[in-house]
Amino acid sequence: MTDSSDPQPQNESAKTDHEGRKPRGIYLLPNLFTTGALFAGFYAVIAGMSGRYEAAAVAIFLAMVFDGLDGRVARMTGTQSKFGAEYDSLSDMVSFGIAPALVSFTWVLSDLGKVGWVAAFIYCAGGALRLARFNTQIGSIDKRYFMGLPSPAAAAAIAGLIWFCTVNEIDPNGFAYGMAVYVALAGVLMVSNILYYSFKDVDFKGRIHFLKLAAIVLVVAVIATNPALFLWVLFLLYAISGPLLWLWRRRPRGAK
Amino acid sequence: MTDSSDPQPQNESAKTDHEGRKPRGIYLLPNLFTTGALFAGFYAVIAGMSGRYEAAAVAIFLAMVFDGLDGRVARMTGTQSKFGAEYDSLSDMVSFGIAPALVSFTWVLSDLGKVGWVAAFIYCAGGALRLARFNTQIGSIDKRYFMGLPSPAAAAAIAGLIWFCTVNEIDPNGFAYGMAVYVALAGVLMVSNILYYSFKDVDFKGRIHFLKLAAIVLVVAVIATNPALFLWVLFLLYAISGPLLWLWRRRPRGAK
Repeated sequence: MTDSSDPQPQNESAKTDHEGRKPRGIYLLPNLFTTGALFAGFYAVIAGMSGRYEAAAVAIFLAMVFDGLDGRVARMTGTQSKFGAEYDSLSDMVSFGIAPALVSFTWVLSDLGKVGWVAAFIYCAGGALRLARFNTQIGSIDKRYFMGLPSPAAAAAIAGLIWFCTVNEIDPNGFAYGMAVYVALAGVLMVSNILYYSFKDVDFKGRIHFLKLAAIVLVVAVIATNPALFLWVLFLLYAISGPLLWLWRRRPRGAK
Repeated sequence: MTDSSDPQPQNESAKTDHEGRKPRGIYLLPNLFTTGALFAGFYAVIAGMSGRYEAAAVAIFLAMVFDGLDGRVARMTGTQSKFGAEYDSLSDMVSFGIAPALVSFTWVLSDLGKVGWVAAFIYCAGGALRLARFNTQIGSIDKRYFMGLPSPAAAAAIAGLIWFCTVNEIDPNGFAYGMAVYVALAGVLMVSNILYYSFKDVDFKGRIHFLKLAAIVLVVAVIATNPALFLWVLFLLYAISGPLLWLWRRRPRGAK
C-alpha cells in the first residue's frame, strides 16, 4: 500500500540510459505492468460511465496492485529507466487522479451540478499537483514520511467507499454533498504539507518476527472476509492518520 | 499548434531549483496556465458525459491554447521549473490523452461495445507513451521534427471531427466503426517513429516578410469563418503529412 505511489526511481543508470542514448529499446516487463495499471484506471472510468460502480472501484484497486509492482519489478530486474518513470507517472494520473474523480462524478456528484464537478476537479488537480511534486522531490525529503496524502491512498479511500456502498446497496443520493466534501478533501490532503508515515523503514526483505508475520496474515485474512468494508476503512484511517499525527505533534505538553 | 506539446524545458536553472532546494515556492503564472489547460481537459470529459459534444471539442482546443502558453510564459519570465514540466506533462495527459478518448467514447464508440473501448484505450495508451517518450527525448533529437504525431495534434484531429459533425448535425452512428479506426490510428501515429515537421526552424521572433505575414493573417481569417471545419482539416492534414513525408522519402528515384 504505502509506497505504491513510487515512480520507478530515476537513478544513475537511468540517466546514463537517457543521456548516453545507448539502449534505444524499452524494458518490456515493468512497462507491461504500467500498461496494466493504465488500463485498469481507464477501465474504471468506462465502467463508471455505464453504471457499473463495483467494477469501477475494483479496477482502481487493481491499478494500485499493478502500480505497486512496476517499480518493484524494475528495481529487482535492474530495468529502471527515465522513460518508465515518466510513463508510470502518467499512468498514475489516469488511475489515481482522473478515475476516482470521474467515477465519483458519475456515481453521485453529477446530480449536484457545478458543486459536483468542482469537487471532482479539486480532486483531479490535487492528484496532478501531488504527482508533480512527488516526482520533483525524489530523494530530497525524509524517506519515512510522504508529504501530503499519496495519490493511490486517496484513490483507495474514494474507491473503497464507492465499493462498500455499492455492495451494501446504500443509495449515495442521501449524502451527495457529503461525498462532494469527501472527494474535495481527499484532493486537498494530497497537496497539503501534512506528513504521512511511509512504512519505508519497515524492512520487508529481512527476516521478520513470527508474530509480525502472523499479524500480517491476520490482516490480509480479515480484509479478505469483506474487502469492500476493510479496504475502505484501512485507507480512510490512513487518510485520517496524517491530520491526527499533525494534531498529536502540536498537543499542549505539560497542561494537565 | 506545432510545439504546443512542449513541456517547460528542464533547463539548468530548474535543476538548481530542484537540487539546491532554495526556492520552495511554485511559480504562479505558468502553473496557472497549466491549471487552465488541466481544467479545460477535465471539463471536456464532463461535457462529453452530459452529451454536450460541441462544448467538449471546444474545451480540448482551449486546452491547446493554454498548453501552448504555459511553456512560453515560463521561458519569457524565466520561471521554468522541473515541477512545472511535470505538472504540464500530467495536464497534457488529461487534455490530450484522456479527454479525446473519453469524448469519442461517449460520442459514438460506446455503442460498439468492446471494439469501442479498445479503440479509445489504444488512443489513451498511445498518448501516455508519446508523452513519456517526448519527456525523455528532450534535446536529444533533431529539433526540426517531432518523432510521432504530437499529442495535441492528435487530440485536435479528433476534437475537430467531433466539432464539425456536431455543428453540421451529422449523425456519427453512420460511421461508428470508421471512428473507432480513426481514434485508434491517431493513437498508433503518436507512438510511431514517423517524423512530423515541427515548424521550429521558423523564426517567429525575427522580422518576417510582409507576404508571409499576410498569408498567416489570411489563414487565421479563413479558420475564423468556420473554425470547426478548418481546424479539423488543418490538423487532419498535419496528421497525414507524416506518413506522406515518409512515403515521399522512400519514393523510387530515377524510375520513369
